[in-house]
Amino acid sequence: MLYFIFEKLQDANVPGARLMDYITFRSVIAMVLSLFIATIIGRRIINRLQMMQIGDIVRNLGVEGQMKKIGTPTMGGIIIILSILVPCLLVGNLSNIYMILLLVSTVWLGVIGFLDDYMKIKKHNKDGLKGKFKIVGQVGLGLIVGFTMWLSPDITIRENHEVRSVEQNHIVEITYEGSDIKSNQTTIPFVKEHNFAYSDLTKWVGDKQTAETAGWILFILVTIFIITATSNGANLMDGLDGLTTGCSAIIGVALAAMAYLGGSVLYSSYLNIMYIPGSGEMVVYMSAFIGALIGFLWYNAYPAQVFMGDTGSLTLGGIIAVFAILIHKEFLLPVLCLLFYIEDLSVILQVITCKITRRRTGTMRRMFKMTPLHHHFQKVGDGSVDAIIQRPYQAVPESKIVIRFWIVGIILAALTFVSLKIR
Amino acid sequence: MLYFIFEKLQDANVPGARLMDYITFRSVIAMVLSLFIATIIGRRIINRLQMMQIGDIVRNLGVEGQMKKIGTPTMGGIIIILSILVPCLLVGNLSNIYMILLLVSTVWLGVIGFLDDYMKIKKHNKDGLKGKFKIVGQVGLGLIVGFTMWLSPDITIRENHEVRSVEQNHIVEITYEGSDIKSNQTTIPFVKEHNFAYSDLTKWVGDKQTAETAGWILFILVTIFIITATSNGANLMDGLDGLTTGCSAIIGVALAAMAYLGGSVLYSSYLNIMYIPGSGEMVVYMSAFIGALIGFLWYNAYPAQVFMGDTGSLTLGGIIAVFAILIHKEFLLPVLCLLFYIEDLSVILQVITCKITRRRTGTMRRMFKMTPLHHHFQKVGDGSVDAIIQRPYQAVPESKIVIRFWIVGIILAALTFVSLKIR
Repeated sequence: MLYFIFEKLQDANVPGARLMDYITFRSVIAMVLSLFIATIIGRRIINRLQMMQIGDIVRNLGVEGQMKKIGTPTMGGIIIILSILVPCLLVGNLSNIYMILLLVSTVWLGVIGFLDDYMKIKKHNKDGLKGKFKIVGQVGLGLIVGFTMWLSPDITIRENHEVRSVEQNHIVEITYEGSDIKSNQTTIPFVKEHNFAYSDLTKWVGDKQTAETAGWILFILVTIFIITATSNGANLMDGLDGLTTGCSAIIGVALAAMAYLGGSVLYSSYLNIMYIPGSGEMVVYMSAFIGALIGFLWYNAYPAQVFMGDTGSLTLGGIIAVFAILIHKEFLLPVLCLLFYIEDLSVILQVITCKITRRRTGTMRRMFKMTPLHHHFQKVGDGSVDAIIQRPYQAVPESKIVIRFWIVGIILAALTFVSLKIR
Repeated sequence: MLYFIFEKLQDANVPGARLMDYITFRSVIAMVLSLFIATIIGRRIINRLQMMQIGDIVRNLGVEGQMKKIGTPTMGGIIIILSILVPCLLVGNLSNIYMILLLVSTVWLGVIGFLDDYMKIKKHNKDGLKGKFKIVGQVGLGLIVGFTMWLSPDITIRENHEVRSVEQNHIVEITYEGSDIKSNQTTIPFVKEHNFAYSDLTKWVGDKQTAETAGWILFILVTIFIITATSNGANLMDGLDGLTTGCSAIIGVALAAMAYLGGSVLYSSYLNIMYIPGSGEMVVYMSAFIGALIGFLWYNAYPAQVFMGDTGSLTLGGIIAVFAILIHKEFLLPVLCLLFYIEDLSVILQVITCKITRRRTGTMRRMFKMTPLHHHFQKVGDGSVDAIIQRPYQAVPESKIVIRFWIVGIILAALTFVSLKIR
């Protein structure tokens, strides 16, 4: 909104109005605003939620300290969503297709998550939204994002653009060549020519035109799968104080940096990565996202004063997936979001091994002490020894599990960048 | 060491040997190695320290959970120092003046910190090294660093270097002008022409040559002051699990990024910051530093299995100060390391107000509930309300204070970067 006002001011030659042109400047403003909303207004929302007795129903997991969580308000995801939306609506370029898609995704996922939380609390229905309904929502978002990327003329990439520079009187002018193309190319990590197009996989279908269409359909299917897996992963991870908040913020920083590099014609050419015209605007969104999470962590850190609920976790996972898809980096997610997928997998593997062992041996055996994975560590020690009683610890404390997950998240984010550079 | 071996291999045209030329590649290796040493070998060291009963003497602060800390081994700083030194000796360019200075500082500070810890534990002498001796060590380091920067011909800067690029057949060649000069210029934040030289302040002394010398002496005095303040700040901060570790790692990331930008002729010209030939090598050191801290945090996170002791904290603060001085960014420290200085100030202010109020009113009044500042928050609530008993909390839990300090640290680091960009 402010972006458009400043554009008018700029036409009227008001001094300083040009600042709003700069993505870095607007990103800073967005982050400051989102930090402010998440911490200052967030506190009021938390008090409000507590008065309305919107507390989570705590499963009895037999885990230490867990009963202390009774009464902690949930649905804090509302704070996160507000802290993202308000700054973006204020300083974002709302005519940018990427910004529009991200805002639509945020609202869409927020509504699904909110309905889920609402049903759990008001109807005392522990299962929340039927799993199927949740999946339908995620698939729906996948279709929206996938089809928009296929059909929108505003979404293009510029591959192997050439750099040209002219110099006069010590002033360097750098101009760029290459035309914007519609493409379902994507970046794959750790290999030399690290792009491949989905339509390369569908060449067997028929002529070039048909293969292209089939490629896009394949892309949409992959999009749906990634959004579902990532959103559910973040959702499953949200069981320890600050865990999903911190991990998502770390992933957000990595994605923002990639969007910044890929949205700049200069840096993308130096790093030899795909240039995506207009995608720099996503940095403004991601700055608000990071600010919102850091601000939320203020209250969500162990011991948490508020939980994000499905309103938060489903939304965060979904946004991360959509963001990565928009910058054609979805194949970096298996590294960057590995922790989300491990949480997904731990649940799936646990169910499978339970079923198989029961069928084969009659008694049910578990692969993990408890799933999702983070609870497993609350039931086993890390091999360290208690100083006083000189016995191995029986469990890793919650706060330490959370920080260790963050540490792994930071290492994975660093690894994702290394994969861009080293081929 | 490996760096020299690979240089020889390169002369012999062994394929792949050129990789070691790249600062980014060696930084990655350094970080992986330091992470490995801090976590894998670190665990053995912790067990060893515990067997040797090198536990900290815990002051009874009347703070919740604090007596649980008895028996936790201290002197974990040894792990941090090892995890920095070994990777740097392996993959660092040991003929680079900046690398040499950083390694010397690490060992120097490590020895002082170790002596302090050793006296505390073995002699049961709670005061450790006499404060004076500690200060002498820090002043000594300031003299070493200050005089080396003044007198070494390898330490230069290149100011306002021009960029020139030549293009032939779509290949861009960028060449640079400007000569390396000896200068005590430094970067100051938030202002347009954000450099000033210490010798500008000493013009009144006499002719240009004398003013230059006086400027360097002023620089050395500032260096001593900064090293002492920062090292003691980190030392004072080290009272809660993971606090100094996390804050130092965050500062390390910011400093590494600044060294990378300032050590690259290209980026420094784009950002219009000082180019410092050879300073890119410091990124390798800082990568090991960051890896060491992240690895150490694995065990140092709340509830801590090991403390860093003065061996760690004095060293970390000192390294940060020396690093910032080497890249001529010491005037950014009041923002970047604000938390360290606030810890310093809280103690000083507390002592002063106690003395003044006692003299004036006869009864001693305190400014904070307890200093260093982080303990203050263990004695006052943050205004939030307990969900079950509906009463304001009387204290912020340790783990939450730590994470909130980290959050403030991240915001300060971001602000430091903004100060470089916005003038």
